[in-house]
Amino acid sequence: MSDVWGSNIKISIFGESHGAAIGVVIDGLPSGVALDTEHIRREMLRRAPGNDEFSTPRKEADEVEILSGVYDGKTTGSALCGIIRNTDTRSKDYRPHLLRPGHADFTAFVKYGGFSDPRGGGHFSGRLTAPLVFTGAIAKQILRARNVEINAKRIAPTDDEILSAKADGDSIGGAIECVINGVPTGVGAPIFGSVESKISAMMFSIPAVKAVEFGAGVAFAQMHGSEANDEFYVENGKILTKTNNNGGINGGISNGMPIVFRVTIKPTPSIAKPQNTVDIERMENTTIQIEGRHDPCIVPRAVVVIEAAAALCVLDLMEVSK
Amino acid sequence: MSDVWGSNIKISIFGESHGAAIGVVIDGLPSGVALDTEHIRREMLRRAPGNDEFSTPRKEADEVEILSGVYDGKTTGSALCGIIRNTDTRSKDYRPHLLRPGHADFTAFVKYGGFSDPRGGGHFSGRLTAPLVFTGAIAKQILRARNVEINAKRIAPTDDEILSAKADGDSIGGAIECVINGVPTGVGAPIFGSVESKISAMMFSIPAVKAVEFGAGVAFAQMHGSEANDEFYVENGKILTKTNNNGGINGGISNGMPIVFRVTIKPTPSIAKPQNTVDIERMENTTIQIEGRHDPCIVPRAVVVIEAAAALCVLDLMEVSK
Amino acid sequence: MSDVWGSNIKISIFGESHGAAIGVVIDGLPSGVALDTEHIRREMLRRAPGNDEFSTPRKEADEVEILSGVYDGKTTGSALCGIIRNTDTRSKDYRPHLLRPGHADFTAFVKYGGFSDPRGGGHFSGRLTAPLVFTGAIAKQILRARNVEINAKRIAPTDDEILSAKADGDSIGGAIECVINGVPTGVGAPIFGSVESKISAMMFSIPAVKAVEFGAGVAFAQMHGSEANDEFYVENGKILTKTNNNGGINGGISNGMPIVFRVTIKPTPSIAKPQNTVDIERMENTTIQIEGRHDPCIVPRAVVVIEAAAALCVLDLMEVSK
Amino acid sequence: MSDVWGSNIKISIFGESHGAAIGVVIDGLPSGVALDTEHIRREMLRRAPGNDEFSTPRKEADEVEILSGVYDGKTTGSALCGIIRNTDTRSKDYRPHLLRPGHADFTAFVKYGGFSDPRGGGHFSGRLTAPLVFTGAIAKQILRARNVEINAKRIAPTDDEILSAKADGDSIGGAIECVINGVPTGVGAPIFGSVESKISAMMFSIPAVKAVEFGAGVAFAQMHGSEANDEFYVENGKILTKTNNNGGINGGISNGMPIVFRVTIKPTPSIAKPQNTVDIERMENTTIQIEGRHDPCIVPRAVVVIEAAAALCVLDLMEVSK
Repeated sequence: MSDVWGSNIKISIFGESHGAAIGVVIDGLPSGVALDTEHIRREMLRRAPGNDEFSTPRKEADEVEILSGVYDGKTTGSALCGIIRNTDTRSKDYRPHLLRPGHADFTAFVKYGGFSDPRGGGHFSGRLTAPLVFTGAIAKQILRARNVEINAKRIAPTDDEILSAKADGDSIGGAIECVINGVPTGVGAPIFGSVESKISAMMFSIPAVKAVEFGAGVAFAQMHGSEANDEFYVENGKILTKTNNNGGINGGISNGMPIVFRVTIKPTPSIAKPQNTVDIERMENTTIQIEGRHDPCIVPRAVVVIEAAAALCVLDLMEVSK
Repeated sequence: MSDVWGSNIKISIFGESHGAAIGVVIDGLPSGVALDTEHIRREMLRRAPGNDEFSTPRKEADEVEILSGVYDGKTTGSALCGIIRNTDTRSKDYRPHLLRPGHADFTAFVKYGGFSDPRGGGHFSGRLTAPLVFTGAIAKQILRARNVEINAKRIAPTDDEILSAKADGDSIGGAIECVINGVPTGVGAPIFGSVESKISAMMFSIPAVKAVEFGAGVAFAQMHGSEANDEFYVENGKILTKTNNNGGINGGISNGMPIVFRVTIKPTPSIAKPQNTVDIERMENTTIQIEGRHDPCIVPRAVVVIEAAAALCVLDLMEVSK
Repeated sequence: MSDVWGSNIKISIFGESHGAAIGVVIDGLPSGVALDTEHIRREMLRRAPGNDEFSTPRKEADEVEILSGVYDGKTTGSALCGIIRNTDTRSKDYRPHLLRPGHADFTAFVKYGGFSDPRGGGHFSGRLTAPLVFTGAIAKQILRARNVEINAKRIAPTDDEILSAKADGDSIGGAIECVINGVPTGVGAPIFGSVESKISAMMFSIPAVKAVEFGAGVAFAQMHGSEANDEFYVENGKILTKTNNNGGINGGISNGMPIVFRVTIKPTPSIAKPQNTVDIERMENTTIQIEGRHDPCIVPRAVVVIEAAAALCVLDLMEVSK
Repeated sequence: MSDVWGSNIKISIFGESHGAAIGVVIDGLPSGVALDTEHIRREMLRRAPGNDEFSTPRKEADEVEILSGVYDGKTTGSALCGIIRNTDTRSKDYRPHLLRPGHADFTAFVKYGGFSDPRGGGHFSGRLTAPLVFTGAIAKQILRARNVEINAKRIAPTDDEILSAKADGDSIGGAIECVINGVPTGVGAPIFGSVESKISAMMFSIPAVKAVEFGAGVAFAQMHGSEANDEFYVENGKILTKTNNNGGINGGISNGMPIVFRVTIKPTPSIAKPQNTVDIERMENTTIQIEGRHDPCIVPRAVVVIEAAAALCVLDLMEVSK
């Protein structure tokens, strides 16, 4: 099942890039939360295309219409549905019978028997992260009132590297680090309920994410226990750790230190350079040159997506922990 | 919820390291599968301690008693319960009021209000991977009949590095790569149903796993689209890719190429060297010297665990894809 | 969690009676199903108000706008979202501080801390069955292609009894019987996966349903085994039963005979007669006289709702049974 | 999926009537609950066979061995597994190729392709309610500490009717009413989260249950709104209803009045009288005379099963409502 997620906060994401609308239904929100619509708008803008020289010039207002679950400006406790109409769509840019390398054209074709919406990547489009950002904006508001703050930042590539890739008609990958402060000790569970399981499953739901690391992450492979272990100490009646190699998680459960994770994002598959591929109608080898409008690097716009996704995980986990 | 996993194959893992028994209930297995008990026994042995110079000398027979779900040597289609009695337990080795750095002593204490079983790490023990290996052995048998093969191998550290850490009273981390061949194109789903989400959530359920990468993984951060994209070609009526940087997955869905992922495993937290920590009863800073019996590196024994976990994921996903 | 349902076909229902829109997201539909929109429209009309002398004169077009999941008239396999705008709303009819007997005013107030949408019953309104009918119409189309037919009919009250209740400013309950033909033998599962569990949970999700019986139902209490048992016989290589007291289900699993169940529907709680109640603001005993527009009996309009709900259950179960 | 149930308290039931053992894994229990093993033993005895003249003389000790999740007599918060060894089994009583009318022999044969354990009904046996009673006994202890009490009683048939059926070599159905006191207002949710949905799905998981009614139940079909509505009144600052036709539930949510429901139980299908049936090996019509040992009426032993099942539902719902 692809489009439903969550235990305590359940979300259903729907829509295709060039269909009528994309959106989300959020079930399980606490009632009585006054929505800060200006904050939601700002978060949507952080993800929206066309805001800087790195991103596609495609312009989407990305205004969310809330259809349910809010009365008198506050959440009702019933399912909240928000939709975003698709406005600026140019379907002619895409030729679905030529499989775009790195994209889901081939796998979607096989899985859905040729019936998936091919326009702009359809349901596989990065555009589907817009409802996630909307949901995350609400989650952040609820978490902020509980003193949980989530901040992600780009750690690669540099601006120059992006501009260089763009100039070459190429694209470039990168990485984002996310730090979550304020999660109380005791959130999550051993084995299948680990904080790492929850967060990683969500992160790998975001198109182009190909690696997730917690704390020291891949560097653990070269470490000894004597340097990797986070020694405990007590200060003002609170137990802390001197280092945070475990990224705030022991045995799958939050230990009160900041939760720290990194995601690696692969280069935008859509590049201007010609590529070898297959014409799936004719089953013939051929080449493809993708025109359209595409980000040379999606990492700048993905930062708020990672934050939103993390916010949803933490809210879902903290509702469990009540 | 910590102990229940799965969509089509649901498993419930239970037990504590030094309790009466550990085990698993597996629901959703197809009926009529003739269990190869010798294969199960060999798989259990690959994980069992005491088999080489790297592992703890603790001896556990790890024989599984099947209580249900098998009749006349074949699965019945009803829930299969397998239990493993704990035999060689020496509880005096552990002093629960001193928090062992890198372990779940602290987080378990907070989460369960001091009621979790502290002996040998209780439910957080690596010993809980034994029922996973048992389940994986059954999953592998079913998958093999569908031409799916799963092979993992240690890629770090070397034998010498493990022996050196052991000689120092220290431990060392490492990494395992897993390759899954034969998964048909079209398994998995976009967004929350991605193969990466499924596998990563499961991998992070295994104690000590701190990073999961697919295909080129963290290396994607330095790659350009023109090198990262896996170009398609057609050969004998079959669509393949020239490279496999995406690890066999596009848009969350298997593309027919081998599924490739790596996990990073942190060093065994139990080391002979003295460490700073906190006495949680007295809320005082102190030091701890862990005696007991511990692997200097769990990576060798974890290889079969990773395979088992992967097998479960693939079986669960393929049942979906039917 | 109130608004998400299903294992293989997952639906999320959202909306409030007098909000912007009500709707549903349906995940897990097979791809390539050509939607018969005329059939959908007819099914929506069967439930819509204002069609006969029994129902409220409130007029709703109940036209569904499909936002996603359909391309070129066929399902894509991705989540399908359908919304229905609310048009004819007269909020002044309701005074939320007077608890309407038999309604959810009190329980909603307590559960949601006074933040639920009170207009027209909000999320508790019978109007929320419209998206269910929409979903059921799609499910029926898919099932019909698999030779499964679902037919419900009113078994109480008679037309005269409804008109008599209406003349008295009162309302009346009733019952509906539903017969599902064509379900293959072997659908469902023992214990928690029983067909009865699936169907009953769904039926009790429909407002005003207060009893669900399978086959002989409550009459079983007075029966002996020798009359209750459905004897088997074989005819033309097919095993059948002579009677169908078990309503087509043995051990939670369909036996190939028609699945038969009945639901009892309580009288519409909104009646013109004055009733004793509580003013929840003043916490004082008082009386309420409900004006508004209300059906004297919802059973005629509920017939298609029961069919739709049954269709969803069968589709969800048959996808499992594949 | 047949054997896993629950949202906050997840249980997995396993075992076959004449296999090695039956049992249950319970995940999500709060930690620190001191188990009253004597109470558990008494509850198990209420269900055990051989205690009175109505029940089968088959003797089972039904002693539960707890394998995990309990340390020092208290729940740890990790999964609790309890198993019950099968002792008194006489497999020769059953001839699986003759389909027993009213039993699951036929449906199990089709669903599992002939691989299900046929001995004593296998996984379909009423014996599988023993782990449910064990789980319910724990749930009751937790609920009692929260002032929730659950009491069921037989409302049909009378002792004489049972003895008369027994003398005839026949069996008889019956009904059980269950009253749950002390559930706070606000438990449950509208639509799919209704208390009725939760309880009915669980009740229909119990073999032989064929009808579930809440409050006035099937009698609602003949009632008018003016008599069916439960009028509210306030007394000592507490809102109550004068009648309880809705069985303590409005809009799917508990209203603070006692939750009242009834289940109808069909006659034991195993009767001494000869019955027509089919030999599934030969696909021929024939007759069957069931010998073995069977209850003429299972209602007396089912009372504690209904209570246990209700306790589990309420515990699962109240954990949600926290």
